[in-house]
Amino acid sequence: MHRSLLLTLGGLLCVGAAAAAPMAPQDGAAMLSRFDAQIDPKEMGGWMKLLAAEPNQVGSPHDKSNAEWILGQFRSWGWDAHIETFQVLYPTPVSEAVEMPGAHGKVWKATLQEPPIPGDTSARAKQYVLPAYVAYQGDGDVTAPLVYVNYGNRDDYKRLQQEGISVKGKIVIARYGHGWRGLKPLLAEVHGAIGCLIYSDPQEDGYSTGAAYPAGPARPAEGIQRGSVEDVSEFQGDPLTPGVGATKDARRLTRATSPAILKIPTLPISYADAQVLLSAMNGKIAPAPWRGHLPITYRIDSTVPVHLMVKSDWSLKPIYDVIATIRGSAWPDQWVVRGNHHDGWVFGASDPEAGQVALLAEAKAIGGLVRSGWRPKRTIVYASWDAEEPGLLGSTEWAEAHADTLRQKAVVYFNTDANGRGILRVGGSEDLEKFADRAIGSLTDPETGASVNARRRAHMELAAGSDHDRALARRAADPSKDLGVEPLGTGSDYTAFLHFLGVPVLDFGYGGEGSYGGIYHSRYDTYEHHSRFVDPGFVYDAMLARTTGRAVMAAADAVLPLQNGGDFADAAAQYVSELKTLASNMRKAADAQKKLLAANAYALAADPTKPHANPPPLAPVPDFDFSPLDRAVAGLRKSAAAYDAALAARGAGLSADKLARLQEVMRNLDRTLLFHGGLPGRGTWYQNLIYAPGRYSGYGASTMPGVREPLEEERWADAARYIGLTAGVLNAYGAQLDKATAILNS
Amino acid sequence: MHRSLLLTLGGLLCVGAAAAAPMAPQDGAAMLSRFDAQIDPKEMGGWMKLLAAEPNQVGSPHDKSNAEWILGQFRSWGWDAHIETFQVLYPTPVSEAVEMPGAHGKVWKATLQEPPIPGDTSARAKQYVLPAYVAYQGDGDVTAPLVYVNYGNRDDYKRLQQEGISVKGKIVIARYGHGWRGLKPLLAEVHGAIGCLIYSDPQEDGYSTGAAYPAGPARPAEGIQRGSVEDVSEFQGDPLTPGVGATKDARRLTRATSPAILKIPTLPISYADAQVLLSAMNGKIAPAPWRGHLPITYRIDSTVPVHLMVKSDWSLKPIYDVIATIRGSAWPDQWVVRGNHHDGWVFGASDPEAGQVALLAEAKAIGGLVRSGWRPKRTIVYASWDAEEPGLLGSTEWAEAHADTLRQKAVVYFNTDANGRGILRVGGSEDLEKFADRAIGSLTDPETGASVNARRRAHMELAAGSDHDRALARRAADPSKDLGVEPLGTGSDYTAFLHFLGVPVLDFGYGGEGSYGGIYHSRYDTYEHHSRFVDPGFVYDAMLARTTGRAVMAAADAVLPLQNGGDFADAAAQYVSELKTLASNMRKAADAQKKLLAANAYALAADPTKPHANPPPLAPVPDFDFSPLDRAVAGLRKSAAAYDAALAARGAGLSADKLARLQEVMRNLDRTLLFHGGLPGRGTWYQNLIYAPGRYSGYGASTMPGVREPLEEERWADAARYIGLTAGVLNAYGAQLDKATAILNS
Repeated sequence: MHRSLLLTLGGLLCVGAAAAAPMAPQDGAAMLSRFDAQIDPKEMGGWMKLLAAEPNQVGSPHDKSNAEWILGQFRSWGWDAHIETFQVLYPTPVSEAVEMPGAHGKVWKATLQEPPIPGDTSARAKQYVLPAYVAYQGDGDVTAPLVYVNYGNRDDYKRLQQEGISVKGKIVIARYGHGWRGLKPLLAEVHGAIGCLIYSDPQEDGYSTGAAYPAGPARPAEGIQRGSVEDVSEFQGDPLTPGVGATKDARRLTRATSPAILKIPTLPISYADAQVLLSAMNGKIAPAPWRGHLPITYRIDSTVPVHLMVKSDWSLKPIYDVIATIRGSAWPDQWVVRGNHHDGWVFGASDPEAGQVALLAEAKAIGGLVRSGWRPKRTIVYASWDAEEPGLLGSTEWAEAHADTLRQKAVVYFNTDANGRGILRVGGSEDLEKFADRAIGSLTDPETGASVNARRRAHMELAAGSDHDRALARRAADPSKDLGVEPLGTGSDYTAFLHFLGVPVLDFGYGGEGSYGGIYHSRYDTYEHHSRFVDPGFVYDAMLARTTGRAVMAAADAVLPLQNGGDFADAAAQYVSELKTLASNMRKAADAQKKLLAANAYALAADPTKPHANPPPLAPVPDFDFSPLDRAVAGLRKSAAAYDAALAARGAGLSADKLARLQEVMRNLDRTLLFHGGLPGRGTWYQNLIYAPGRYSGYGASTMPGVREPLEEERWADAARYIGLTAGVLNAYGAQLDKATAILNS
Repeated sequence: MHRSLLLTLGGLLCVGAAAAAPMAPQDGAAMLSRFDAQIDPKEMGGWMKLLAAEPNQVGSPHDKSNAEWILGQFRSWGWDAHIETFQVLYPTPVSEAVEMPGAHGKVWKATLQEPPIPGDTSARAKQYVLPAYVAYQGDGDVTAPLVYVNYGNRDDYKRLQQEGISVKGKIVIARYGHGWRGLKPLLAEVHGAIGCLIYSDPQEDGYSTGAAYPAGPARPAEGIQRGSVEDVSEFQGDPLTPGVGATKDARRLTRATSPAILKIPTLPISYADAQVLLSAMNGKIAPAPWRGHLPITYRIDSTVPVHLMVKSDWSLKPIYDVIATIRGSAWPDQWVVRGNHHDGWVFGASDPEAGQVALLAEAKAIGGLVRSGWRPKRTIVYASWDAEEPGLLGSTEWAEAHADTLRQKAVVYFNTDANGRGILRVGGSEDLEKFADRAIGSLTDPETGASVNARRRAHMELAAGSDHDRALARRAADPSKDLGVEPLGTGSDYTAFLHFLGVPVLDFGYGGEGSYGGIYHSRYDTYEHHSRFVDPGFVYDAMLARTTGRAVMAAADAVLPLQNGGDFADAAAQYVSELKTLASNMRKAADAQKKLLAANAYALAADPTKPHANPPPLAPVPDFDFSPLDRAVAGLRKSAAAYDAALAARGAGLSADKLARLQEVMRNLDRTLLFHGGLPGRGTWYQNLIYAPGRYSGYGASTMPGVREPLEEERWADAARYIGLTAGVLNAYGAQLDKATAILNS
């Protein structure tokens, strides 16, 4: 039954050929095998070796030469390709220090550079490797005692307050994990800290997870995780040009006026160095959940002064997006866009070149198909982005620079990034669930012989971390339903498409079995590490090419719109129910806490010999009127069911005129989820009212963020207002589906 | 209103004086201050120093001389005292080894003795300190690779099965925590292991928790936790004389025929030694929750052979219970029994001498009151038990030897054990909740000035670990309710009274702020450690004496029965609701797992390059008929309300005859909770159908164990049968209350 709603890829190609005519009828399955046959894992490995041979961060010589090489490859495969350049703010470290009084009156100095490992690219590369840093921290020269803040997230600061300890005037030391990197210095700054160190604790990222590289895949004691700490709560991309492309002549903010740049100096350090700093602390013992896996007594506060200094070169740097197109035969003004970045932190083998070589392999294979006669109905745009690592600059500036065109033409955006051995994960817009299911349905997992979707389904069925995981698991357990996709926050180049432009997206990546975490954003993310531990034989990098290639070709040739109505309606219903549960749980917690505070329970239960305080009081939670959302979901379900039924019944035999009108309506469907006013307190760049990168979760998606985030932050008026606004975009989405249904039924 | 039901201690003493007459009327409050004035923390510290001066484990010279010294003290304070001796099986190590191939062809040997620490009793003591051992392991000489089993509990073995790893023929290494020590070698043995090592991981017990002794209170790298590993699933006490006193001529099982003695050699080791053994392992990496805080990669299996040898002296040893009495003036055949053990694992300062010196201080103060004219109405029996550590032998053999007398005479048993600075915890029989609340209501916490009960209430309100914690927290948040007591499993000397004899018990102990865990059962549990870190100034040891002394005096002089009906009815209702939730959750889990197995989800989601297997299948859970328990709880609530009301209305003016009949009925009240057939599959020693030491949780209480444990172990027929039997004892308890109500209303 589901098969009748949206045709399989093979079917799509046939229908496409029949409906839009210029080519001879083709056999979809045969075409897929011709595509697959051109994917050569060995060749992909060679490309990775080349792309990851030297440091390729923004502004490095190899970053530029990679872009030029990629350009040449596209052209050699028959694509119309060019490099598009932007000028962005990208600070690189000039000098750095982390120091502490040491034994015998000497000064102990942290090692801020990772030693090369013999036999590895880290030793073989010729070009300069920058010392470890995080992009868009604040520069400065400060001396103060440390406060250990665990993961440095909001709950940790609440706990700190209860322990009676302030970070004001102190340097914070936080471990990686449980929240995005950039929130750690941001929250430190908000709470009055004057500096921030971030380290990889071996509990999450070190010997606890496996033998250290090169003996095993795990992070060595000296490994350091770089990364962006740009404050992306209001916008993504170049900190100086929010909302517009960072072209040469763009109007720019300054470093001082950009809200995206932090004010306090921040450095990432290794756990070897963190152990020295943490074990020199002499204050209150950390609560049990705060203790990591270093062989020390973790303490919260200290009297030992630590010196932190960062000085950066804040000049503009050029970035190089490679853009390649194959013009559509039937609907050249409908674009299927597909991207993966090419810049890394150092060598960037797993992140991003694993995904980049998949993109290249697809491009080569598609080029081959075109050479042998195939012409996609829609225009295919391949983008090899630069400057993803510092803050999605390549994709964002391009999306901003071409916003009007993309709003007119982009049908869908497909993204990939780091990749490794394991199970396929798909994130994106729920109205593409059925499309994704079908497009990749023919893929077989190389190590088990099961279908890729079967493994994906099993993995989702067994996931049980969050409420949302469990909702997806319940869904995966029902074989009559489409496999769910994860809602997306940020962390890769789909961001501007989904949140700024309202283009539906899918993000593909294999993983979970290869061991990639241990070298994430370090000097050891090399060709050798990738081919030994992350994806031996490039088997799953090749799978990624087959997967994304199928999606691209299916989208390029599908006659009928890609979206399905029912899946998004189901997701919206789930998100609304999660909001209600959140409000109700918060109300219960606030009521319970109020009683405990009235009874003085926290003070009575505390050890009076140790500093302690009451937890920050929770505001009483009003009774929200969720009925606008309930009504909107009910209406949406109806509209979705009607559309899905009409498409199934009448989609196959549409006249060219009706088809054009249907395509036009549905191309604007996901854009109805945008609200030009943006999210409450977060500017106007994030316009999608269904998902956003959580302000306090970072990469993770906050669903229905206009309501959810104000709830979480006790801003009741905003929450109440965005209940109406969110209901409004659901109503608009439903109305758009009704328009499509009317065309189908006319 | 509640105050009218059972009078406060002051009131009790007045009423007692008025009703039973021989003494002059007394002022209860003045008597309490005379009692309190005799509690001298400094003197108690001196006693502890003496009792903990030399190793005092069973069979040691100092154990015997302590008993004799205690006897002399009791006599000097006017008590009628004697030593009662039993002959028990108590194995002590003769030779031991844990070895592994080391570097350069040498053999690495574990250090099985803890080094003395200068300035500490561990260095000052003159007498021989046994090497570390666990009592009632199996002796043997085996060589095999290690398997790391995390905490070695049932869930860990399920996970191990899923990882595709067996312990058959291997030596298991488990960390302490999450389940009783004795279950670790027992489950290892059941699963086919040939030896067992247990170590203290620094996550729970080492540097993670604080600075190592002597710099701080935490366990040093060389510290070793001794303890009993007797299999107490069927009975407690001497392994050779279940159910009867281990008198000289008792009929005895042999070491080979006793079900309480393990078959495989087992040793406890330090984390310094564990680190060497664990880091030499070379197999599969342990799952994240299994990783402790040693700076190594935890692995599950290994090919490196380890040699384990234990040889013990299995001769019978004498034990010395000191029994002291003051005869009751009104009802000499009604006994209030109070005990604390005097044997330790090495010096045993915090465990047990902190409680022992409280017991002695009470005895001295009560002796002083008696000298100044007070005579308790009931007989007071003070017991200083020997041989608690190996398996509650002193209290159990005495309870068994005097079972008939105690069934006739014991009104209540009060217990203490280790003690330290902090908040009072009270465990025991729920029908004594009101009694406990009132008896200790006048106590003020010395460090906060709040009442002891107010801190206890606050602590309970904030506890949220288990469902049961949350139920107690809800209750504590309602000031109209009595403060709940924790249901008791085992772990101290109340066990035979509660589970074998059916005597209601209360167990008192302060703690949570002093740091005692780090030296638990080690050579470093010394006077110095206790007075520096656990209870500086012996302030809370003195509080323990004031607390338990109040309970003893209140129970000895109370005219009306100690029990309240409503609190136990509330608890029974809670336990029944927990059983239903358990069955329903198990049913859901089994249904969900069945679907996952049918879909082959575990295999599809697993990494095929690593060994893995399906989880052990959960049996489908039938629909149990809980209505007998529902009806029993409803009836019990009715009977309890009627009794509580009748006692409040008519308790004060009872005739001597009615009072005698009421006391007789209520003395047998808690005995109605026993079922002579015992628990399903666990022999006939544990007869209490409301609580038992959980078969697979060890010290922790399993409530309504006749139903709960078969549920947990998928023995459906047993569960169904014990629903009826448990309903039966609730009905019997209600009927006994009805008898008492009839007397009151007659």
